[in-house]
Amino acid sequence: MSCIFCDIVAGSEKAEILVDDEKVLAFLDIRPFNYGHSLVIPKNHYENFSEVTEEDLFPMIKSVQEISKAIKSSLNADGFNVLSNNGAAAGQTIYHCHFHIIPRFTSDGFKFKMNLKEYSEDEMKEVAVKIKKYL
Amino acid sequence: MSCIFCDIVAGSEKAEILVDDEKVLAFLDIRPFNYGHSLVIPKNHYENFSEVTEEDLFPMIKSVQEISKAIKSSLNADGFNVLSNNGAAAGQTIYHCHFHIIPRFTSDGFKFKMNLKEYSEDEMKEVAVKIKKYL
Repeated sequence: MSCIFCDIVAGSEKAEILVDDEKVLAFLDIRPFNYGHSLVIPKNHYENFSEVTEEDLFPMIKSVQEISKAIKSSLNADGFNVLSNNGAAAGQTIYHCHFHIIPRFTSDGFKFKMNLKEYSEDEMKEVAVKIKKYL
Repeated sequence: MSCIFCDIVAGSEKAEILVDDEKVLAFLDIRPFNYGHSLVIPKNHYENFSEVTEEDLFPMIKSVQEISKAIKSSLNADGFNVLSNNGAAAGQTIYHCHFHIIPRFTSDGFKFKMNLKEYSEDEMKEVAVKIKKYL
């Protein structure tokens, strides 16, 4: 199946590349929230973050760290978000694992719109018990 | 300086713990977007993601991966976001590096409010050149 990020890795689709390593590719998002908004991907195809094997996971996160520092310094950003959306319900639109690095500036208008919930102590314990069964 | 996450690591502040490894602690966020919203932190204190050394970075991301899978399976989530906010401008409120894992359900109302920008080809190149000077 065709994958635009695999095409970028292969060089058949163009992108403004920041890093081209053995395992990892990083390039500018063409529709940035702020200029410098970048994507970091493993060169190998994984549908999402859950599937990435260690040999690609570690170089990827190391690269996310190095690039986020470079973005912050070079653009004099006040901060940055690291974000990976997995599944359509989470906002994933391209099914090749990727991490967004979003440079942030004070009062730049980006908001996470979310109404936070509260737990009773019992509810919290129940949820933790459920999750721990899978760990 | 006092740090609530260091206090959780030390056991002097309570939390609903999911994972307590040599290097990493994971626990439920007390003000979740969805039930199961969790935080993964390195036990060592780092103000933010940029500062985390490899010996803590790799176990942390491995743990983020394992826990996000467990959250998705145990809660039958449709997807999840992995998010780290770094700096006040990015929404960081606790200055001990942490990754959010947010289970997501179709139409759960969470939105990233962001007006995306566009680049001219020249602008895009200029931004990439700036960042690459730091890489």
